Amino acid sequence: MPTYRLTIEYEGTRYRGWQEQKNARTVAGELRRAAEELAGSVLDVGGSGRTDAGVHALAQVAHLRLERSLDVLQLAAGLNDRLPADIHVVVAEKATPRFHARHHALSRSYVYQISRRRTALAKRFVWWVKRPLDPRRMAQATGLLRGMHDFVLFCERPREQSSTLVAIEDARLREDGALLLLRFTGSHFLWKMVRRIVGTLVRVGAGELALADFERMLAGRPAPGRAGPAQWTAPPSGLFLERVLYAAEDGIERELRAIVPVT
Amino acid sequence: MPTYRLTIEYEGTRYRGWQEQKNARTVAGELRRAAEELAGSVLDVGGSGRTDAGVHALAQVAHLRLERSLDVLQLAAGLNDRLPADIHVVVAEKATPRFHARHHALSRSYVYQISRRRTALAKRFVWWVKRPLDPRRMAQATGLLRGMHDFVLFCERPREQSSTLVAIEDARLREDGALLLLRFTGSHFLWKMVRRIVGTLVRVGAGELALADFERMLAGRPAPGRAGPAQWTAPPSGLFLERVLYAAEDGIERELRAIVPVT
Repeated sequence: MPTYRLTIEYEGTRYRGWQEQKNARTVAGELRRAAEELAGSVLDVGGSGRTDAGVHALAQVAHLRLERSLDVLQLAAGLNDRLPADIHVVVAEKATPRFHARHHALSRSYVYQISRRRTALAKRFVWWVKRPLDPRRMAQATGLLRGMHDFVLFCERPREQSSTLVAIEDARLREDGALLLLRFTGSHFLWKMVRRIVGTLVRVGAGELALADFERMLAGRPAPGRAGPAQWTAPPSGLFLERVLYAAEDGIERELRAIVPVT
Repeated sequence: MPTYRLTIEYEGTRYRGWQEQKNARTVAGELRRAAEELAGSVLDVGGSGRTDAGVHALAQVAHLRLERSLDVLQLAAGLNDRLPADIHVVVAEKATPRFHARHHALSRSYVYQISRRRTALAKRFVWWVKRPLDPRRMAQATGLLRGMHDFVLFCERPREQSSTLVAIEDARLREDGALLLLRFTGSHFLWKMVRRIVGTLVRVGAGELALADFERMLAGRPAPGRAGPAQWTAPPSGLFLERVLYAAEDGIERELRAIVPVT
């Protein structure tokens, strides 16, 4: 069965997320439609993970199983001819028949863009936070994320998870003009976890949440008598699935830089 | 008469350019409407120059004369509250009563973004050129632009100009991933001149126009028996008014970098 690995860039604004759904426009749904138009029958399409409605991707990875074999350059060009302008196949590669984009992924990284000012060019790609933020406090809190923590408070429907323990390989914050860029790398992330981390970090940056309370939340203990990460979900517009790593890929250091600079 | 200097960022996609027009949505028209809502009567609004329909600005400069005086922070915030999401006043400053954004501008710089691949995130901000381009040939041609030239072939309605001679202070090309970035700095630019320069440089890069022919065109002499810059106008989507310089501003070196990186 011819299996391909696709690297896909999309603007999530118009979509109800990655995952195929009946009666809703999704990125994977558009991909399947384009592949069917191009190659007839599509046996399977699957991404490295779901992205929620409105979340973007610089390099989502998907497997695509077709009935008939196609040249990879023709596959990429043929899909792009049939995809909407806000979805783009950057690379199509031949994969082993058993390649599975979700099961075989070793780690994912997400970038979140906070803009500290209104922006005419980048509105769809940032969360505009009007409250003054202290980036140093936020960077301290971001550093606390590294390592293994219980993200039960940061997760939508935690009972559906086999475990809410997640190891964060790397978490960092960088100031770039009016932007605050955050990057999180880990083996996997729970539903809404990244957006709730960001929403909570903004509370820390605004001086509304103590570092010690944030640290307790990372152990699954809520701050008594107050709202928690579930009430602080950051909007999807600022979030990008940046990269998915598989075996046999080196971990090249990448500069953390703005998707759309806001100076 | 209270006069303000505004620095304005906008995405030009939805507008028929900067200049106010009857029965058309323009950036200056939106600015006047917002200022009238905020401050009552608006005596004058004027930009450093017109940008055409679809052209963007990172830092257009305008003068705004009002009947009553306003605090500059309140002016910027009040305008932004009343402007559409794709227009943003970055800074409002008190100016001398005679400050005129067009007459007093010493130089303008424009950035043009060519993408050598289809892009899901940056479509509105690039010209996607499908033909293979040789950036070295293009850089050579770009270098020829520096100095004084007769841009009669690059100008819409040249007879309406008092002169078609323009001094280009600086012109440069930089490769950045899939992008080719071009920046042009000069005292002024003629109507459609930048987009025709870019369209012609792309002909050079595609190997369809010799450097010597390009050089002749910069002296106002058409290449015999073939199309010219007027037929090669690059689309507005890739063009940004980047900066306008006035007296008493230093010429800080700025990195030429992508507005929306396309890797």
